[in-house]
Amino acid sequence: MAGNSFGTLYKLTSFGESHGRGVGGILEGVMPGLELDMDFIQHELDRRRPGQSEITTPRDESDRVEFISGVMDGKSTGTPLAFVIWNKDQRSGDYNNLKDIYRPSHADYTYQTKYGIRDHRGGGRSSARETIARVVGGAVAKLMLRKLGVNIQAYVSQVGAIKMETPYQELDLEVAETNIVRCPEPKIAEKMISYIDGIRRDHDSVGGVVSCVIKGAPVGLGDPVFDKLHARLGQAMLSINAVKGFEYGTGFGAVEMLGSQHNDEFYMKDGRVHSRTNRSGGVQGGISNGEDVYFRVAFKPVATILKDQNTVDNEGNEVVMKAKGRHDPCVVPRAVPIVEAMAAMVLADAVLINKTYL
Amino acid sequence: MAGNSFGTLYKLTSFGESHGRGVGGILEGVMPGLELDMDFIQHELDRRRPGQSEITTPRDESDRVEFISGVMDGKSTGTPLAFVIWNKDQRSGDYNNLKDIYRPSHADYTYQTKYGIRDHRGGGRSSARETIARVVGGAVAKLMLRKLGVNIQAYVSQVGAIKMETPYQELDLEVAETNIVRCPEPKIAEKMISYIDGIRRDHDSVGGVVSCVIKGAPVGLGDPVFDKLHARLGQAMLSINAVKGFEYGTGFGAVEMLGSQHNDEFYMKDGRVHSRTNRSGGVQGGISNGEDVYFRVAFKPVATILKDQNTVDNEGNEVVMKAKGRHDPCVVPRAVPIVEAMAAMVLADAVLINKTYL
Amino acid sequence: MAGNSFGTLYKLTSFGESHGRGVGGILEGVMPGLELDMDFIQHELDRRRPGQSEITTPRDESDRVEFISGVMDGKSTGTPLAFVIWNKDQRSGDYNNLKDIYRPSHADYTYQTKYGIRDHRGGGRSSARETIARVVGGAVAKLMLRKLGVNIQAYVSQVGAIKMETPYQELDLEVAETNIVRCPEPKIAEKMISYIDGIRRDHDSVGGVVSCVIKGAPVGLGDPVFDKLHARLGQAMLSINAVKGFEYGTGFGAVEMLGSQHNDEFYMKDGRVHSRTNRSGGVQGGISNGEDVYFRVAFKPVATILKDQNTVDNEGNEVVMKAKGRHDPCVVPRAVPIVEAMAAMVLADAVLINKTYL
Amino acid sequence: MAGNSFGTLYKLTSFGESHGRGVGGILEGVMPGLELDMDFIQHELDRRRPGQSEITTPRDESDRVEFISGVMDGKSTGTPLAFVIWNKDQRSGDYNNLKDIYRPSHADYTYQTKYGIRDHRGGGRSSARETIARVVGGAVAKLMLRKLGVNIQAYVSQVGAIKMETPYQELDLEVAETNIVRCPEPKIAEKMISYIDGIRRDHDSVGGVVSCVIKGAPVGLGDPVFDKLHARLGQAMLSINAVKGFEYGTGFGAVEMLGSQHNDEFYMKDGRVHSRTNRSGGVQGGISNGEDVYFRVAFKPVATILKDQNTVDNEGNEVVMKAKGRHDPCVVPRAVPIVEAMAAMVLADAVLINKTYL
Repeated sequence: MAGNSFGTLYKLTSFGESHGRGVGGILEGVMPGLELDMDFIQHELDRRRPGQSEITTPRDESDRVEFISGVMDGKSTGTPLAFVIWNKDQRSGDYNNLKDIYRPSHADYTYQTKYGIRDHRGGGRSSARETIARVVGGAVAKLMLRKLGVNIQAYVSQVGAIKMETPYQELDLEVAETNIVRCPEPKIAEKMISYIDGIRRDHDSVGGVVSCVIKGAPVGLGDPVFDKLHARLGQAMLSINAVKGFEYGTGFGAVEMLGSQHNDEFYMKDGRVHSRTNRSGGVQGGISNGEDVYFRVAFKPVATILKDQNTVDNEGNEVVMKAKGRHDPCVVPRAVPIVEAMAAMVLADAVLINKTYL
Repeated sequence: MAGNSFGTLYKLTSFGESHGRGVGGILEGVMPGLELDMDFIQHELDRRRPGQSEITTPRDESDRVEFISGVMDGKSTGTPLAFVIWNKDQRSGDYNNLKDIYRPSHADYTYQTKYGIRDHRGGGRSSARETIARVVGGAVAKLMLRKLGVNIQAYVSQVGAIKMETPYQELDLEVAETNIVRCPEPKIAEKMISYIDGIRRDHDSVGGVVSCVIKGAPVGLGDPVFDKLHARLGQAMLSINAVKGFEYGTGFGAVEMLGSQHNDEFYMKDGRVHSRTNRSGGVQGGISNGEDVYFRVAFKPVATILKDQNTVDNEGNEVVMKAKGRHDPCVVPRAVPIVEAMAAMVLADAVLINKTYL
Repeated sequence: MAGNSFGTLYKLTSFGESHGRGVGGILEGVMPGLELDMDFIQHELDRRRPGQSEITTPRDESDRVEFISGVMDGKSTGTPLAFVIWNKDQRSGDYNNLKDIYRPSHADYTYQTKYGIRDHRGGGRSSARETIARVVGGAVAKLMLRKLGVNIQAYVSQVGAIKMETPYQELDLEVAETNIVRCPEPKIAEKMISYIDGIRRDHDSVGGVVSCVIKGAPVGLGDPVFDKLHARLGQAMLSINAVKGFEYGTGFGAVEMLGSQHNDEFYMKDGRVHSRTNRSGGVQGGISNGEDVYFRVAFKPVATILKDQNTVDNEGNEVVMKAKGRHDPCVVPRAVPIVEAMAAMVLADAVLINKTYL
Repeated sequence: MAGNSFGTLYKLTSFGESHGRGVGGILEGVMPGLELDMDFIQHELDRRRPGQSEITTPRDESDRVEFISGVMDGKSTGTPLAFVIWNKDQRSGDYNNLKDIYRPSHADYTYQTKYGIRDHRGGGRSSARETIARVVGGAVAKLMLRKLGVNIQAYVSQVGAIKMETPYQELDLEVAETNIVRCPEPKIAEKMISYIDGIRRDHDSVGGVVSCVIKGAPVGLGDPVFDKLHARLGQAMLSINAVKGFEYGTGFGAVEMLGSQHNDEFYMKDGRVHSRTNRSGGVQGGISNGEDVYFRVAFKPVATILKDQNTVDNEGNEVVMKAKGRHDPCVVPRAVPIVEAMAAMVLADAVLINKTYL
C-alpha cells in the first residue's frame, strides 16, 4: 500500500520482484519535451548490473529498459513515463531449497509474517533487483538536473577497514569510474579490490561506505520542517537494500566538536554569499545553501554468504541452511549508481517543489 | 508547501514560528475513543521545555497545550485533533539586532533566499520551538502504542567525547530520567553534566548522541520499498533541528564486519521465531521482526554561541556578529523527548498502515 | 484519517466541530509575500455567517478569523498559515435532547457507527459550521488568483421551482450581492425571498441551485486523467454539506444533444484560439481552455426542520423527534461564498501544479 | 505530475496513450492472498472493448491484460500489481491528417498549450483508451468487494431523449447485460438501439446517462469532510471521458423538494437501523448508511463525428476539418463497465481506510 512511491512531484512508483516477469515503474513529474538520452539511461543501468567485474556476482543480467508510455519521437510528453526491465536470467529453481527457510538477516521471515504470503524466489520484492527501477528514475532525473548545472558523483570511500583519508576536494572524483571498485584513489582502490577478492574466495561478504558529492545545487532546495533536504536524502539512502546509516556534512563527527569549531562563517565572493568552510554539508535549516552537498552511506556486509548457517523454517523447525548460489562479496561498487539515482530523484523533486513558491 | 506534514495515516501537520502567536498542529489518524491523558501529554512537553535545569537555556517556557477540536469528554472522537501552544516569553526585541544578519550555520540565509522573506525573530519557523508540535503528536502516538505494549525509551549516550560503553541491554534505561542530562549511567551522566557546564561558562556549545530503544514492536511494521521502517525513522530523526546523522542496529560499525560475523541466526523460543543476536536492529527488509528496534542520532553543537563571529548581512556587507542572548550549550538532553516523539509517530503510522493489509 | 485535507499543493487541512472550542485549518501553498487583506477575508466570512438576513437562521455567529502563524507584518511568509475561528454562541444545551437520537437524513447514525463515538452537539464535525475553514482557505486563494486576473462569481439560480432563465452572459452577476438571496435577477430574487419566507413560516426547508462562473482562468489548468479540472471542482462541490449534484458546461442537458449540436468550433480572435460557443464549460480534456468555466451545484432541502419526525434512538427504540431549535429554511444564499471558496482553492491548486511543468 | 493516481490506500496509478506501446497501471492496496480470477478480469475488459456490437465503434481491440508483478501462483502477494495492455490496432497513420489540427471539443488545443507538446495520435493520453487501466483496477477491486458481499451494477438509463421511467427497485438490473445497449428494460433497450443506429448512419453522436446501484455496502464508508463517499464517487465519475454531470440519491431533483418531503425516516428492522425511504442515496454526512448507494452520470455526445467541421490548426489558421475515421455514435453502453470500475475502486479505498479506525 504505502511504500512503493518516492517523491512528491518528481515521483517514482516502482514495481517488480526478482523472479517475476520484470521490474519497472512509473515516473511522474518529468518535464515535457525532455530529450530522453537512451544511451545515458542504459549506461546508468550498466553501472548497476551484476556480472560487470570479477568482484561482483557472476549473475549476468544485461538489463535493458523499455519505455511503454510518455515518450514520442524520443521526447517526454508530460504524461507518465512507464518502463519495464524484463527479468531474463531467472533460474528460480535455484531457490526451491529456500522455499520454506527463513534466511538469516534476510526479509523472508518479516515478509511472510506481514503479508501472510511471500515470493521466495530470490527474495521477491525484497531483492536488490528492485533498485533497477530507481536507477532508471534517477537517470531521467539527472537529465533534468543537467539542464540546471547540477552534478552528482558518488564513489566508494571505504571497504571493510580500508578507507580513504584524502578530503574529496583534493580528488578528481571521476577517477572512481576508472576502476571496478569505484574508488577515486587508485592506490586505495587496488587494496579494496584485492581485499574483496579474498572475501569472495572465503565465501564471505564485507561492508563499505559510499560517499556522494552534489555540486551546483542552487540555493533553496529542501522543504522544512519534515522534508528538509538532508532528511529526504536520508530516507532515500536508508531505503536502499543493506544500508545501515546516513550522515551528511560533519555527520557523527560533529558530536565531538564545539560550536565555535563547527560553525561555518559566511563571506562574500563574486557578489554572492558563501561559506568559508562547509561543515554544514551544503544544507542549513534543511535548505541547500549553494555549497557542495555531501553525505556518506553505510552498507552492511550482505546477508547472502556461501557458508552453512543455523536458522528456522516456515514451520518452526530449527535447520541448517546449506551454502548455495551466487552472491556479491561486497555490494558497494554496484551501490554507487543507486546512491546517485536516489540523490538525483530527491533533488529533482526539490527543484519542482521550489518552482511552486516563486 | 510540501514539508509540514509527517506520516501517511497517523499524520501530524504542524505550524508555527518561535515568535509568532503560537505553535501547534493537526493530528489525523488518532483512533476514536482514545482517552487523552492530559497529564501525560503535559509531562512530555515538560521534558522538552527550556529552562528545566541549569544545563539548558534559561528561557523559561512553560508550554501548555490546548486542544481545540477532536475531543469530547476527554476522549478523541476520530475527527482531527487540533492543538496550539501559545508563545509567551516572546521578547522578540532581543532579535532586532539580528534582523539583517545571516547568523553562521543558521537558516537565515537559506530561508531568505528560498522564500524572499523571513521571520527573523528567533529563527521563525526554523527555530527548535517548532518541535513542540512534534512532542504533542508523539505523546498521543505513545498513548495509542501503549495499548499495543510498545515502549519507546531514548537517552543521551554521548556528549562531546564522553560516551557510554555499556550495552543498553545491561542497563535500566529509565534511570536516564533521574538526571538532568538524561544518561542512564549515573557516573557518565555526572561527567557529562560537569562538561556541559564548562562549555556553558565558555559561551560555547557541544554536540552529542541520543540513542533510542523500542521494545514490544510487533512483527510487520514498515512498508517496503521506500517506507522501510528504518528509512522512515531516519527521515524522522534527520528532520529534527541540529541532527547530522542516523544509524540503526550496527550502523556505521557494520562497515568493517563480515557477513559471517554480522548475520543474525534465527531460532525458536516460546513458539515464536527469534534472533539470537540483533545486529539487524529489529528491522529486516525494512519490516520490524519482533526484536528491539534501536538506533542512534547524532546532534551537532548548536549554532547559537555567545562569541563574536564573522558573517554577512542582508545587503552583502561582511560584519561581525556580536554575542548576545540565551542558548543551550548542549541540546541533547532536551532532544530526548523529541526523538521519542518522532519514533512514536513513525510506529503509530506503521501500525495503522499494517491494519489495512490483513 | 483521510478526508480532512483538500488540494495537492494549495492545501487546506481543516479541523473543528460546531460546538467544540473552534473551527479552523492550516493552509499550505500560499505564496510568500502575499498581502493578507484581512478586511476581504472577514468580508467573505460575513457573507457566509448565519443571521445575516431574515431568510437565514437566526443564530448570530460573528465569526472572526485569527491567524496564528505564517504571517509577519501582514504578509505571508511561505510557512503554513494556521487559523482559528472560536465558537461563541455554543448553547450546546439545545442539543441535549438529541444526544441519543438519530436525526432523519443527518449524519448522526453514520458517525456513531463509523467512529463508535460522536459529538452530538449541533452535528459536531458534520455541521455546516465546518465550512468556515473553507471560506478562509478560499479567501486567501482568491487573493492569489486576483494577481492572475481570475474572478470567481457564484449566485443563486434556483430556489424550489423558481429558477432563472436568462443566460448568465446577459446579466451583471455582481447584482447577486445586492439582495439577500444572492440572485442576480432582482425580480426572480424577490420571488425567491418571499417563497423562502413562506417556507420558514411553515417550519419547513427547501432546496436550490448555486451557479458559478469563473472568468479569466488561463489555458492549462487541470491535471488529467484523474484530477481533471471539472473532476476536482466536482469533488470540491460535492463535499459541501447538502450538495446532491454537480454539472458543468451543458451538464445533464448534454444527454439529449447530438455531437453536431454540441461541439464547440474553434476560431481565431486577437491572435488567440477561441471557442465560438462554450458548451464545454471552459474545460476540454480536463484542462481549462481559456473560456469561462461555469457549473451548477444542486442543494437538497436541509434536513433540520421544525416538524415532528419519526426516527430511532441509539438503543434502537423507535421514537418521535420533537421539533426544536433554529434552522436555515434554504441554505443556498449562504452557500454562495462556500461554492466560490471551494472553486478558488481548486483553481489555486491547479495554478501551482501547472507551475511545475514549464 | 498530479493526476495519474486515484485513491488513497486502494490506489491505481495509470499510464499510457492510445497509440503508444500500451496502457496499464500499478495497483496498490490489493490485499495479499487474493485469488486473481483472470477470466473475470478479462470479462470486464471485454465489456468495455470497442467493436463488441453494431452500435459501437468498429475498431476491434481485443485487449488482453498482462500482469507483470505482484502475483505468484495466481494470488496477489501484497506487493504492487503492475499490468499492461499492449496496443495492437494502432493505425496511427489514420491520424496524420490531424497532426496539426485542433479537433473541436477535443483536448488537442489544451494539451498542446499545457505541455507544449502533444501526442496527436488518436488523442494520446486524452483518449478513452486510457480507461482500460481503470477497468482492470476496478475488476480487482470487485474481487475484493465480493468477499464483503458488495455488488455494483451500472446500466444505461437514458440515450438522447429515450429514458427509463421504472424505479430501479422494480427491475432486475442484470437484464442490462443481455442487450447491446445495456438497458435493463428490454423495450426501452430496443428503442435506444434503433435510435443509436440512426445516429450512426447520420454520422453523428448522441449523449446518454449511466445509472449505478451499489448493494451491500457496509455502514461507515466515506471520509468526511472532503472525501465524503459521494464526493469521491463524483470525482471518480467526472474523471471519465465525456462526463458532464453527476448526481446521487435525489440529485438535482432534490432542489424542488421540501425538507418534510425529502427526509428519510429511520426505523428498526431485523435489529438494525434502516431508512424507510432512500432519498439520501445511501449516504448521510458523506458516510454510507447501509442502504443502496445509487447515482447517475451524464455523458455528452462524443466529439468525434463524421461531419466536416470548422476549426483552427496549430499555427492559427482557420481550417475545415474533413470527416474521417471510426467512432462510437453513443458511448454509454461501453461506459457501463467503466462507471462500475471507478465505483469499485472508490469503495475498496473507503473499505481500507475504514479498517484503520477500529
